[in-house]
Amino acid sequence: MNSYSSKLLESAVNELSRLPGIGKKTALRLALHLLKKDKSFSENLGNSIVKMRRDIVFCKKCHNISDTEFCEICTNQKRNEKLVCVVEDIRDVLAIENTGQFNGLYHILGGIISPMDGIGPNDLNIDSLVRRVETDGITEVIMALSTTIEGDTTNFYIYKKLKEFSLDITTIARGISIGDELEYADEVTLGRSILNRTPYESTLGN
Amino acid sequence: MNSYSSKLLESAVNELSRLPGIGKKTALRLALHLLKKDKSFSENLGNSIVKMRRDIVFCKKCHNISDTEFCEICTNQKRNEKLVCVVEDIRDVLAIENTGQFNGLYHILGGIISPMDGIGPNDLNIDSLVRRVETDGITEVIMALSTTIEGDTTNFYIYKKLKEFSLDITTIARGISIGDELEYADEVTLGRSILNRTPYESTLGN
Repeated sequence: MNSYSSKLLESAVNELSRLPGIGKKTALRLALHLLKKDKSFSENLGNSIVKMRRDIVFCKKCHNISDTEFCEICTNQKRNEKLVCVVEDIRDVLAIENTGQFNGLYHILGGIISPMDGIGPNDLNIDSLVRRVETDGITEVIMALSTTIEGDTTNFYIYKKLKEFSLDITTIARGISIGDELEYADEVTLGRSILNRTPYESTLGN
Repeated sequence: MNSYSSKLLESAVNELSRLPGIGKKTALRLALHLLKKDKSFSENLGNSIVKMRRDIVFCKKCHNISDTEFCEICTNQKRNEKLVCVVEDIRDVLAIENTGQFNGLYHILGGIISPMDGIGPNDLNIDSLVRRVETDGITEVIMALSTTIEGDTTNFYIYKKLKEFSLDITTIARGISIGDELEYADEVTLGRSILNRTPYESTLGN
């Protein structure tokens, strides 16, 4: 596909196809869709992308994406600032916020320790986490990283950095997903969920 | 997902998720990817989209997408202007151009007759095709539309409009796709390809 009859179309298709998961054919489909729609549609899309990349900053406290020096979560007076949840990236923040079950602040590492990908502890926002623990009067740090070897390694590294301070270090519960059938659960998960069993609580009311 | 902690990110995600086949989750993934990349990446993408939509025009002759009044294909002196291939949209032009087997000009209808979608003959570039046939000395019109009921209807409608002129009206060959196994071909295709059999030509050399 090299004869678009229009340099403008060719340029837009090339740029779109640089996005992850979007090949030349999809890029062409998107570009033709834009051409069918109002001019304002393309203007809003194009300008919002340029504006976002140009003006967005990272919260100086938790490294979340923000429009201001400190993000909306860190500046929210109603949240419990003694409780900090450590996550890999902003998508995890959104996932936890959607549960509506967490009222503390976050700390975004910007990745996890992964020697295979050349990511070491110094590439992550770990020093700033230690500084927050030293100065902000945090009483509990909840580790909410992926249950992978990389996640466990990062958990362990951070645990060693924080254990000298007097605070609770917890991890989110691991176990059988709600709605899962037991016979299809993997052995490690099932084994751990037996070891870490919790007192019975009725979910059906009394 | 309604707490992006950044209005800029939220706006970009909303705009991206208006594109066909891109939901909120994919839009967020794309936006975060843009944030990780250089500023120039987002600028190129955003500006090329706005520029394309603002500056692109349609060829006054064949309705192809173009940067100038007449498209590159229509203005190419080396092409046979007596031969016109009628297609549904620009993607078909690209597909045929990629074969390298066609040296004539195109005429892009901008759709096919489809009463279900409320598209009638007057919504398509059919009048301008008749005018081209009247004035441009065209000797053959090749119909290259989809083999659907809508495609056949459009073929028939255009055939009726053009049959009063002295020119050949042909359709692209229908038959068994190259590489297909006979036993899996549908009956209509197989039946037609027996009726429209062609003289044997060796594809393996002599």
